[in-house]
Amino acid sequence: MNDFVTLNHGSGGKQSQDLIKNVFVKRFGIIEPLTDSALVWDSGKYLAFTTDAYVVDPLYFPGGNIGKLAVCGTVNDLAVSGAIPMYLTASFIIEEGLPMKDLIQITESMADEALNAKVKIVTGDTKVVERGKCDKLFITTSGTGFMNTGLEHISTGERIIKGDKLIINGPLGNHAIAVLGARNRLSFSTPVVSDCASLNHIIKKVLDRTEEVHFMRDLTRGGLASVLNELASMIKPGITVDEASIPVDDPVKGLCEMLGFDPLYLANEGKFLIVVGKGEEDKVLEILRSDPLGEKSEIIGDIVQGKNNRVILNTIAGGRRILDNLSGIQLPRIC
Amino acid sequence: MNDFVTLNHGSGGKQSQDLIKNVFVKRFGIIEPLTDSALVWDSGKYLAFTTDAYVVDPLYFPGGNIGKLAVCGTVNDLAVSGAIPMYLTASFIIEEGLPMKDLIQITESMADEALNAKVKIVTGDTKVVERGKCDKLFITTSGTGFMNTGLEHISTGERIIKGDKLIINGPLGNHAIAVLGARNRLSFSTPVVSDCASLNHIIKKVLDRTEEVHFMRDLTRGGLASVLNELASMIKPGITVDEASIPVDDPVKGLCEMLGFDPLYLANEGKFLIVVGKGEEDKVLEILRSDPLGEKSEIIGDIVQGKNNRVILNTIAGGRRILDNLSGIQLPRIC
Repeated sequence: MNDFVTLNHGSGGKQSQDLIKNVFVKRFGIIEPLTDSALVWDSGKYLAFTTDAYVVDPLYFPGGNIGKLAVCGTVNDLAVSGAIPMYLTASFIIEEGLPMKDLIQITESMADEALNAKVKIVTGDTKVVERGKCDKLFITTSGTGFMNTGLEHISTGERIIKGDKLIINGPLGNHAIAVLGARNRLSFSTPVVSDCASLNHIIKKVLDRTEEVHFMRDLTRGGLASVLNELASMIKPGITVDEASIPVDDPVKGLCEMLGFDPLYLANEGKFLIVVGKGEEDKVLEILRSDPLGEKSEIIGDIVQGKNNRVILNTIAGGRRILDNLSGIQLPRIC
Repeated sequence: MNDFVTLNHGSGGKQSQDLIKNVFVKRFGIIEPLTDSALVWDSGKYLAFTTDAYVVDPLYFPGGNIGKLAVCGTVNDLAVSGAIPMYLTASFIIEEGLPMKDLIQITESMADEALNAKVKIVTGDTKVVERGKCDKLFITTSGTGFMNTGLEHISTGERIIKGDKLIINGPLGNHAIAVLGARNRLSFSTPVVSDCASLNHIIKKVLDRTEEVHFMRDLTRGGLASVLNELASMIKPGITVDEASIPVDDPVKGLCEMLGFDPLYLANEGKFLIVVGKGEEDKVLEILRSDPLGEKSEIIGDIVQGKNNRVILNTIAGGRRILDNLSGIQLPRIC
């Protein structure tokens, strides 16, 4: 392990996972596999409990701001765990000198998004640190919600079997590119807007109409590739995905080529992977596509025989390659 | 309201309260009076839910570090609300370059304190920001726990009646002075050690033996004076406290005189105010004093007739004065 914490430790890639496992998990006695929310047993049912710190730079980006993100992100962590998001807390660490109008605007975005997601922000905390001791504003939200019955193990991958189909609810990379553009004041000919959105309603639509959801995870830090690699390490069968079927919007594709990024590793804030039982994929696709947050949903791959803890990508060029885990970081502070 | 956020907005005094009320409470629709934990109704009982960000500077101080503080503080917010602390989450915002040994040592303190308090840290998050974008390490913990039956309104002050007695569990100001000393590398002739401790066990001892607990609150930012002023604004009767009965350790007293601080406004991290029904004070005092965290407990005042939203202090000199709310800050970043 490194002697010092580096930006790579916060990337969502392999070094993040090593830090979490080696420093936090064993000391806190957290039960693996690591999932988006902890499930705690509460007199007859499970309560999901999750937390995330938001340090996005800049505070505002096309499609949202740190406040909206702080609500969506925590709502989504609960929703993909199979829980119904209910209550949120919000802790603010503010740099002395932050314009009050920014704090108000960001707070209003949080309130709007909470209303939209039908969750309630019930309590919070405010700390102010001296100028230069934080970067304008950091927000940590935590959330709780009761589990939908029967979905207790949806985050662990243990429901997954050979033949299952992988679906994502739309094109990848928009959040990361939107933040990057805002940070560097890039002017894109076609504007890229963050996909930042609360996914609990679209997820509920699916859960209400099929019992064959075997796994869900939101595609945040580290993107689709990191989620697939985490999943591959958790399950017995293998994973194959078809590059040609993975939607990426043209402006994002163009910028990725220009800047040397791979959209499969880029963060999203309104996208999730859903793995469903064979035969259910068309129904689920239809449900997803009928929702504004899933219009461009696609089936992108399969759960296949033969585990080797690797994700195989059938490339557009017609070859096969391992879709590896990044060790470090593509972009820091995109969430 | 100011155009910019200042350190005073994070002080726990009047400006903090104004910020919370004017910016957060009304937008989030949080129900007043503001208490340490939100209570959310959960199929037949109340779940308490709380969050706090910890930004203490320096990370280590006599008697603890930011990790121990982050566990104790959130445990105490739940305990004084009448809940049994059960599950905690921990979010880390780390400055690039933090020595790994510090992160490990602080994590171990969190694990030790969680074990001591009998709570479980169930999930977390890690973000790393560039050098100079935060001050070494900030930790936000959130916590949940079920309410002890019948204590749903203990934080609102509505159980308080004339004749009730005010008790605190020991001398004031040690945490703030210990942090200040560590920050400025002061060498005190008599070392002052933070009182940082989880209060849930001592509180449970009291709750197990009397039903006459009418109010509890931990004496953190803003100290005893701020808690008394908040309480005064919430309840119908008035509050009188006797300065002579309020314990302050000699080294703290000496340093306060030297530095111009009033110990009644200084932060504590292992002290709480408990208001009990008349006639129960001696029993409660005995229970508190039998615990290592309450050996120096004292009865410090009374709930009296005649509300004027003010706290009256009977001074050591024999006079009476209003114990006012501070507008701003005595010491920033003591928690």
